[in-house]
Amino acid sequence: MAARRGGIVAEGASISPPATHARERMSTYADRLDDAVSRCGNAALVGLDPHLDALPEEFAVARDAGAARAVRAQAMGDFLCEIVDVAAGRVPAVKPQSAFFEVFGADGMAQWERVVARARAAGLLVIGDVKRGDIDSTAKAYAQAFLQESPRCDAITINPYLGADAVRPFLDACARLGAGVYVLVRTSNKHSGLFQDHGSPPLHEKVADEVARWGSGLLGTCGLSSVGAVVGATHPEELARLRRRMPVTPFLIPGYGAQGGSAKDVGAGFLPGGRGALVNSSRGILYAYRQPAYAGMHWKDAASKALAAMQAEIAGCSR
Amino acid sequence: MAARRGGIVAEGASISPPATHARERMSTYADRLDDAVSRCGNAALVGLDPHLDALPEEFAVARDAGAARAVRAQAMGDFLCEIVDVAAGRVPAVKPQSAFFEVFGADGMAQWERVVARARAAGLLVIGDVKRGDIDSTAKAYAQAFLQESPRCDAITINPYLGADAVRPFLDACARLGAGVYVLVRTSNKHSGLFQDHGSPPLHEKVADEVARWGSGLLGTCGLSSVGAVVGATHPEELARLRRRMPVTPFLIPGYGAQGGSAKDVGAGFLPGGRGALVNSSRGILYAYRQPAYAGMHWKDAASKALAAMQAEIAGCSR
Repeated sequence: MAARRGGIVAEGASISPPATHARERMSTYADRLDDAVSRCGNAALVGLDPHLDALPEEFAVARDAGAARAVRAQAMGDFLCEIVDVAAGRVPAVKPQSAFFEVFGADGMAQWERVVARARAAGLLVIGDVKRGDIDSTAKAYAQAFLQESPRCDAITINPYLGADAVRPFLDACARLGAGVYVLVRTSNKHSGLFQDHGSPPLHEKVADEVARWGSGLLGTCGLSSVGAVVGATHPEELARLRRRMPVTPFLIPGYGAQGGSAKDVGAGFLPGGRGALVNSSRGILYAYRQPAYAGMHWKDAASKALAAMQAEIAGCSR
Repeated sequence: MAARRGGIVAEGASISPPATHARERMSTYADRLDDAVSRCGNAALVGLDPHLDALPEEFAVARDAGAARAVRAQAMGDFLCEIVDVAAGRVPAVKPQSAFFEVFGADGMAQWERVVARARAAGLLVIGDVKRGDIDSTAKAYAQAFLQESPRCDAITINPYLGADAVRPFLDACARLGAGVYVLVRTSNKHSGLFQDHGSPPLHEKVADEVARWGSGLLGTCGLSSVGAVVGATHPEELARLRRRMPVTPFLIPGYGAQGGSAKDVGAGFLPGGRGALVNSSRGILYAYRQPAYAGMHWKDAASKALAAMQAEIAGCSR
């Protein structure tokens, strides 16, 4: 991370700098994000994906089909709260993945709330990886559920397939609540091109252009927008091209580590000074104890060391 | 509804007809759906979208921000359970919309479970309107959450943006659990064309072709597939064209009633004999008591009469 601030001219930004004592209420998501990256000196995002099969032995009850659902969900939540403790103060944000909580129904969502609250109390930004998307009145309910009701997320991921009127309620919530969204543009899975590459220009570029446009009305004083984009790191050339199309859009770059991306693949997603992007790793951190490199280590120490390794690797590759 | 069965040749169908006493475990979603439409003699789908502002006065605590969340969620669930009672035995299926439950967090999801269980116990098929979609391992968790864990849905809606490998876990769950999915193809919102019309052929036709292909491996003995499509009724010409592209795909047609579609718009979505499609109405049924036509009537009587009117209107228009 090199010198920061001032790298981007904030066109149309009119929001005053946030007072420290009321940072959340006063500021935009873009500003909180930029500040968190600056404070932490890195752009690592810890994905909270509790794959039950991979949980350390002390949380094994989570995968015991014979145990009560609430007990299983609690064990999953216990594990994630410990991961939050590992991440706190070191990275800007965590990204809980709602699917794994939803497996446990209402008990899982109680743990979602616990983990989100714990992360926020620890000073971490929370990006709810929910990938929601629906027609206007329903999208409004999703925005309320995740960006307004307590404990709320700072930002969520959303799916653009339904179009601009379906995205609008999320943008309204961002403006009203100082929240953020990351729109799926280019995902990190192997066959993401099936629909995302359709047409000429390919669909994902059209989505990117819309994301840039939606975001132009939601700039923070830092010059970045509160409307971000999910851009897979397994396509590095596209990452550079999409960065040019979305010059002030915060990127959420999945696919690092377990999904196959490497640090050199993600550099093109950053703005100068290591700004404007978060690089996610989930399994590579949470289940580091299963990797040969961390053999014999307690799972929490392994997670901590894997996180340090990732932080160093990313810092070296961002521009 | 005219003569049924035999209108479609079931290519590759090899599953035995289900025993009545174990219908759920033995049959495919396609067969349960076709049977339910046949038994009910109509294709009306009641959407359970609990817009808090529109709830009848006796459930007003649901919108009271000062009340405990569990109490508010319970009132919402009470209302929906009564709607389930109105629908039971008269329509093939109900479609709870998860967003409105998620507004109440874990308490809302407890009500989701209550409403899903109530509807299934009443003999209704349940289509969970969750519009989920994510990379493979995460999609697998969503499939487990909604199609496997109790109380499970018979089918759910899913979003195709991530591509075939992200849809695959849902298809696997359909095969393994006798479940169904409805893939978003053409949605009913005003500006759905922004991305869904992109390219040539337009994206939604490409998605339609994939849906037909995905579904060809999941045919019931009735000849229909367990892989359905969401196709908006506000575009009737497209409905006919998409029906030709997806000849054995069950359609879920939203946009009837409050969203602007009329009965004559939906006819093109049906297969001969009134088969192969469900037509959804949510607000038009649930909040009928607010319409001039039902002025002065108890909300439940109004809902019941509005449902009867819809059933008659759809029956007259399906081929």
